[in-house]
Amino acid sequence: MTATPAPRGEGRSEHDAARAMAMLGEERASIDNIDAALVNLLAERFRHTQRVGRLKAEHDLPPADPARERQQIARLRSLAVESGLDPVFAERFLRFIVTEVIRHHEQIRDEDPEAAR
Amino acid sequence: MTATPAPRGEGRSEHDAARAMAMLGEERASIDNIDAALVNLLAERFRHTQRVGRLKAEHDLPPADPARERQQIARLRSLAVESGLDPVFAERFLRFIVTEVIRHHEQIRDEDPEAAR
Repeated sequence: MTATPAPRGEGRSEHDAARAMAMLGEERASIDNIDAALVNLLAERFRHTQRVGRLKAEHDLPPADPARERQQIARLRSLAVESGLDPVFAERFLRFIVTEVIRHHEQIRDEDPEAAR
Repeated sequence: MTATPAPRGEGRSEHDAARAMAMLGEERASIDNIDAALVNLLAERFRHTQRVGRLKAEHDLPPADPARERQQIARLRSLAVESGLDPVFAERFLRFIVTEVIRHHEQIRDEDPEAAR
């Protein structure tokens, strides 16, 4: 009965693969929920930075603010360490967002030359 | 009493500038709170994608999954429109995150060649 052994672990590996796909689906459902929260938070963040952009344009302040950015980066790196996020990634993430924000601020300034007198 | 008019709007513009700086401070306090939430959510997202990475390495699945990414991008663009976020930015944001995730998955695979047999 065991003269020709079954291919090594075949039934087991099929079961494992099905279990892995189920676990993958579970993880992806959580990731999708987190992404929805991230999109909403980013939308809210840009509502605030749009107001900042209008204030800056009205009061002739430059779109970028290197001192503020340095503070933000130091703070986010520290928060990242606390929450187990790679601080290098946290910094890259902030720079990615701030690049978009500065682009918005420049648009606001250029669309409203009266405000940016 | 009004023989020599005050320099045009000087007192007013000082008051306006102080008010603008106060408003800027308020907006920045909200942005800082949102950033703390974003960092925590990103940390949690990477905890899930690390598990996905281990599952993929153990079951010899490729680190990138273009079909899944297309679904995610379509969904996030739609969520972005609902929440008032630029869908082009939402897509760039997801690609930015996914690039980091794939880097993690490749690390997991390379650090654990036994798992990725």
